[in-house]
This record gives sequence, C-alpha cells and structure tokens, in this order.
Amino acid sequence: MATAGHDRQERHKVVIVGGGFGGVQTAKALRKADVDITVIDRTNHHLFQPLLYQVATGILSPGLIAPALRRVLKTQRNVRTLLAEVGDIDLERKIVHAAAPDGQHMDLPYDTLVVAGGATHAYFGHDEWAEHAPGMKSIEDARLLRSRILGAYELAEVSQDPAEQEAYMTFVVVGAGPTGVELAGQLSELARHVLPREYRSIDTRKARIILLDGAPTVLPPFAKKLQKYTQKTLEDKGVEVRLNSMATHIDADSITVKSPKGEERFVARTKVWAAGVQASPLAAMLAKATGSEVDRAGRLAVDPDCSLPERHDVYAIGDMVSTIDRLPGVAQVAMQQGAYVGKLIASRSRGDDTTPAPFKYFDKGSMATIGAREAVADARGLKVTGWLGYMLWCYVHVMFLIGWGNRLGTLFNWVRSLRFARNRGHRLISVRATYDEGIAAEHHRAGDAGHEIPEAAS
Amino acid sequence: MATAGHDRQERHKVVIVGGGFGGVQTAKALRKADVDITVIDRTNHHLFQPLLYQVATGILSPGLIAPALRRVLKTQRNVRTLLAEVGDIDLERKIVHAAAPDGQHMDLPYDTLVVAGGATHAYFGHDEWAEHAPGMKSIEDARLLRSRILGAYELAEVSQDPAEQEAYMTFVVVGAGPTGVELAGQLSELARHVLPREYRSIDTRKARIILLDGAPTVLPPFAKKLQKYTQKTLEDKGVEVRLNSMATHIDADSITVKSPKGEERFVARTKVWAAGVQASPLAAMLAKATGSEVDRAGRLAVDPDCSLPERHDVYAIGDMVSTIDRLPGVAQVAMQQGAYVGKLIASRSRGDDTTPAPFKYFDKGSMATIGAREAVADARGLKVTGWLGYMLWCYVHVMFLIGWGNRLGTLFNWVRSLRFARNRGHRLISVRATYDEGIAAEHHRAGDAGHEIPEAAS
Repeated sequence: MATAGHDRQERHKVVIVGGGFGGVQTAKALRKADVDITVIDRTNHHLFQPLLYQVATGILSPGLIAPALRRVLKTQRNVRTLLAEVGDIDLERKIVHAAAPDGQHMDLPYDTLVVAGGATHAYFGHDEWAEHAPGMKSIEDARLLRSRILGAYELAEVSQDPAEQEAYMTFVVVGAGPTGVELAGQLSELARHVLPREYRSIDTRKARIILLDGAPTVLPPFAKKLQKYTQKTLEDKGVEVRLNSMATHIDADSITVKSPKGEERFVARTKVWAAGVQASPLAAMLAKATGSEVDRAGRLAVDPDCSLPERHDVYAIGDMVSTIDRLPGVAQVAMQQGAYVGKLIASRSRGDDTTPAPFKYFDKGSMATIGAREAVADARGLKVTGWLGYMLWCYVHVMFLIGWGNRLGTLFNWVRSLRFARNRGHRLISVRATYDEGIAAEHHRAGDAGHEIPEAAS
Repeated sequence: MATAGHDRQERHKVVIVGGGFGGVQTAKALRKADVDITVIDRTNHHLFQPLLYQVATGILSPGLIAPALRRVLKTQRNVRTLLAEVGDIDLERKIVHAAAPDGQHMDLPYDTLVVAGGATHAYFGHDEWAEHAPGMKSIEDARLLRSRILGAYELAEVSQDPAEQEAYMTFVVVGAGPTGVELAGQLSELARHVLPREYRSIDTRKARIILLDGAPTVLPPFAKKLQKYTQKTLEDKGVEVRLNSMATHIDADSITVKSPKGEERFVARTKVWAAGVQASPLAAMLAKATGSEVDRAGRLAVDPDCSLPERHDVYAIGDMVSTIDRLPGVAQVAMQQGAYVGKLIASRSRGDDTTPAPFKYFDKGSMATIGAREAVADARGLKVTGWLGYMLWCYVHVMFLIGWGNRLGTLFNWVRSLRFARNRGHRLISVRATYDEGIAAEHHRAGDAGHEIPEAAS
C-alpha cells in the first residue's frame, strides 16, 4: 500500500486515468501549471488507434503507433507516469485505488481527477461473438487480427479441400465506418497485390472480402458524394459491399446476415468486428458513485464543462462520455476535450473561480483510406477523393503521430507498401492465434493422429 | 490427410524441415535444380537470430528481423512453403508427417530430406529455471524479455519499498558469449542513457547489471586481447562481470551463483539465460530411427557430407548436428552447410553419383557489440575494436538481413538509438508478461484487495 511521496503533498494534485488521446492532451495542457500530475494507464504505451488497421494488415510495426507513454511525457517534469490498473475510485475521500501488474496496490489522492478511459467493442448483447469476430482497439487486438488474416491464407495453402480453402479465403468485415472501410480496402490489397505470387496451391486473388453494415450507406457521417465514391472504389477492388445488413449469428465457421432480402449465411473463417463500441467500465463506475445513469453505449453524461454533474473536481472526457451535442467517438473530440479540461484545471489551480465557457467541438473533418492509394476526405465543405485525398490523409496522419522517429518510420513503411514494392514489412503471426479456437478443437477431435501442436515461435 | 499434388509427382522431391539459416540456404542453392522443394516451418517467418537482443531491448521491431518466410522464397518457383509442425519422420517409407496449426495433417513424401531444426535453450537439467530466466531463441522469447526488462523499471517506479525497487532494478545475464555480452551492453545503455529522465521515483542509472559465466573469460572463442577489451568496456559501462561463476539456483526473486570464492545470492527479478543450447528434438528422433545416439547437447552426428550415416537421402545441418571438427553453433555454419547440401542434392538429382568432397567450414570470424557504439571483431587474424568495430559489425549485419526494406529499416532504428536521440523505438510490453508469474501469485496472496488485474491491451 503506497501513497504519493512527501515532496508532492503541497501542490494541487491532478490524477489522469488513461494515457490515450484525451489523457495525454490534458497533461500537455497542464505543462506550465503549478500542479503535480499523475497519469495512470494499464498499458505502457500511448496508442494511435486510427492506424491499428495498418498493424492488422502488416504495413506498420506496432511500435510505430504505440510509443512508450512515459517517453511521450518525459520532458514534462510535473508529470509522473504509472503502469497500473484502476480498481476503484473513492469520490468522497478523493482517492484512486489502483494496482500494478505485480499486484502492488496504490492509493492515489487527488485534488482534481480526469477520467479518460476510452471505449472498447460492443457486440450488442452477443458477447459470444467476440472470440469469432475480434475487433481492433488495442495493439494486442491488431496482432490477433494479423495472425487471423495472414494465417487464413497459410491454412488455405495447406488444405486440399476446396470448400475449406474457400472458407479460409472469405473475410467478412462487420461495420462500414472508417475502420471497416480502411480494413476492407487493405484486405483487397493483400489478396490482389501483395500475396498472389507467394502461394502455390491457392490463388489469393480469389479471396472474397465482404463489408457489411446495417446502415444504407458506407461511411454514414460523410457527404453523399464521398459515400458513393467510396462504395464504387471498394467494389472496383473486388470488395462485396452489403448494406442494410445486420449480423444475426456468428460462430467459428460462419456469419449469418439479415437484410431486407432475407437471411444469408457466409461460410467464413475470418470475421472482423468494426461495428459498435462500448464505453470503458469506468463510466458506469462513476455513474454509480454519483447516482446517475449511463446511456445504451455505456457512456456517462457530463456537464458542458466536461465535469461530473455537481462535482467540479472530477472530469470525464473522450469516448466514455456523452454530451448534449452528440459528438462522434473520434480522437479529435477526446484531444480537444483534454486540452479544454487541462486549461480549465490550470486556471482553477491559479484560483480562478469564474464559470468557464462550455466545451465546444471544432470539427476539422473526417477521412478514410480505401486501399493503397485512394482516400476520401470531408473537411469543412472541402471534399477530396483519390490520390489527392490519399496524400492529404498521409500528411494529416503522419503529423498526428508523436516523435520524428515514428513519423519517418511510418512514411518509410508506407513507401514499402506501395505497389512497386508490394510488400508488407510486418507480417509476424502467432501460430496459436491463426485459427479460431473452436475450429482447432473440432479438428483435433476429428484428427487421425494424436500428436499435439505446441505453440511455435511467433 | 493430404498428399502432394499430382503435378509434383514426377520430379525429384526435396523436403526441407526448418526455414532458418540452414533451410533457406539449402533451398536457394537448389534454385536452378530440376526438383520440387517443400520448406516446412512451424512459424511463418525466417528469423535473423543474432539481432534478437535488439528486439528484447526495444531497438528493432520484430518484423525487421523476421520477414515472412514465403516472401523470402517467393520468386523461387520450385519452392512451396508450408506452415506446419513436423510430428514424425518415416525414414523407411520416406514420408514426413506434419500438422498445420488448425490440426490438418499432411503426409509429405520425399526423395531427399534435409532437416535443419536448429536448437533451443538448455538449462543443464534445471528446466524449472526456464520460467524465471527466459532465453532468446524466438521472436516470442524476445518479446517476453522486452516485457520483463522494461516492465521491471515500471514496477520499480510504482514500488515504495527500496528493497523491492532494488530487486526490480537488478538484471542478471547468465552466459558471457556474444549474446550475453551484447545484451548486457544494451541493458547498460537503457539504464544509463535511455531511461533516466523518464522516471520520477527511481534513478535508473543505479540499476545493477551482472554478467556471469562459468568460463574464466568473456567471449571464450575470441582472441585474448579482444576478451580483455570487452570486459573492460563492459565494466566501464557499469556491468559487473563475474567469471568462473555458475548458477546453482534460480527462482522468481533471485539467482544463486557459485564461484571459487563461494556461493553468492543475488536478489534480482530479471534473469536472462544466454548460456547452454540444446538441439531440436528432431535430432533425437532421427538418431532413434537410425539406431545412433545424440551427444550431451542433443546433437546428431552426421557424415562428412552432412548425410545421416549409411543413409544418403537424409541430410541434417546447422545447430542440431555435430561434426568431427566440432563446429560452433553459429549462423555461418548452418548457412554454409545449407549451401553445400543444396549443391550436392542438385548434382545428385542430375544423376551425378561421385562421392562428394566433405563439407569444409570457412570461418569468416566472429563479432559482438558492446553497447551502443563499440564492438569487437575477430576475423581471420584481423582484430578490430571500438567505433571501427561497430561500423564493421553494422555493415556485416545489415548485409545479412534479407530485403532492402529490412536493411533500411534496421539502419534507421540504429540511428534512432544513437546517443543524440537516446531512444528505443519499439518498447511495447505485454502487461501480463512484465512479471514472473511466481512473484505475481505471491503478491496476490498477500494483497489486501480482492480485485483481479485483467490483461490490459499490450
């Protein structure tokens, strides 16, 4: 049981839970404030989630989009970074209870608390789908998907059964928002341009890539023109776009989809979840402690200044909160809320007690890539497509990465992935993760030999 | 149950088990031969083991030293690559039995078989040490070590108990061959130059790094002058070098070492095994099938042409075999044996039945880095140290990597790791792997709160 050191007891103590976009921006906005900041995260890195799909498809190494969190905050001397998981928050005594991975417990007293716990996948009440259709929220998720996607071709190559090969070479992406569109585009690139000449028994160009969404369009929040362009570009790349289509059943071997035309079952070993999100359980914890409720997506309602109702020493920001103006769950919102809250805490720590202007989101626009060299950008009236959109997308995403090393390294891997090289530099798979456990168990039962397959180096 | 396709039944069939240095060189030497080659590996990548320590210390991303095996062999049209684990080899019927990760079984008939299964760690009869002192033979090993090494500082930062902090900040490397020396040098760089300003509660420069070996010198096969230089350079970097010292006990918290001066116990949470190696179990399998014996390191004796005694259709090469002239277990030997065996098979497949000249190893020399900018090289009489040695080491290692992308990417990361940047670009850790399970269990038992720590994104 540890408490903060003696030298830290005098100054205003800010505890920030979560080292994602919101948490880091809060800390940075407090750079010059006379406060002691503790940032707690249960991972050791600051993750750039929008590029996770590039890890899942072998373009980027995980390290490029996940620098060490304490490195990111290294030069800010009023911040200490702790690798720990929050267990409970005592709003009355103003203490965060946390535990390190080795079981060490900590009590972290705060004067001001900022909770930026983010969100995870939501399977709309079908948690059993999670193992068959993993999503992409963490580096571990992206590594698992990389193993499933690249592993599917490996297993198809070994198979001598055409039906089984087809099942391995059918990829279904659930959700046609930016993440789903970007992933489907890259799956097409892999199948058509990266892998073909590496295989002998299968023709990877025959892989089926199916992108489905319950909405009547891809990229729902984008302009109509861009939606049409995106759908056409994907279809030109061989992606089957199924709209107005909801998943009704997912198991190890297949996915069943319901649309106005009826139900259809796709035999597909690799399914990816890019649909619903669910706020961090920290939202429900705070709601319970303050006697409020979370919404259907598990999000906590906050006041216009991002503080908890009637509790101005606790702020919550990012994907885990809902605001009156229904902001989208994107990095920009979390970052702007973090910067806003940081400034607010800084001025309050100087004794300023005026009521702050409410948080206002400045929507810089949205973008999505569609494969290797097309993208759409919808930025405050400016609508860009194709190669120009892709260049704009590259510029924006590289600039938002942290550190010149990660920026240059990412650019370098993008050049490697262009069509002249047709490579993906980061294709490691975990052998154990290549297949859905359910499938393996079944095969083992049916198998004619008794030897086990131990996990290989991966 | 699958057999090779119909179109492959006419030509001479070569099956190569293992896609490491030996296996890949065998396949490449058969590039122009009129044979059908199948390369089986239980991972999907060709691993450049000599740089694993740079993955373990965050310099390189795993993908840079582990390109996809089928990518490496992509343009060689007479090769197919299979992700599978060999279960049994039937030398009489000339069939390799293998299984894919999903449980699919394969029978691979061969005319000529080449087994290049490599080696793994040996704990001298103390297999229980493996979990407390992991070694470095696979990407998974290196990732685990990275989690332990970087995680140790994270856990020390959380701790408020000086004795516990010291235990976390004591690193013991067992084995002062090239791998142990290189790792100890990098541990010193991390502690002294990379991490210091990132921590608030601990001074990482106070970390203890202990390098021990049972031999009376570091780098036993190197020239005496280079041994002395290496030891002095390491000691200048704060590494405690303990020679004539054998590990007698290793557990989660400590390592006990016996030397002529008596026994000493170091309280150290992070131990790394860079000592003994043990041949792949495939060596014992082949020995049993041919009625021969393996040596103490589990290696199979082969004839001067690398074939099994009285069985000229089966070759074994690399770390899993022993030859009369006691070759070292290094990449160069496996590569040269692979090239030799490949040429031999090619000429035999053309009907050449003359007795081949025995395999002869051409020793190009040995090298090892000592930290960030020194290295020693002992190459056929030429002895180089310091910065020049480091440049030579960089050149040789970059040239042996496969693919311009991996070469440039590696060089780029080396520049990032130099002292002006003082960064390590690839520092992801798995939270669950940060601590030795034994420690965690104990902490949980002693813990004052009941909540579990689920695995975080990692």
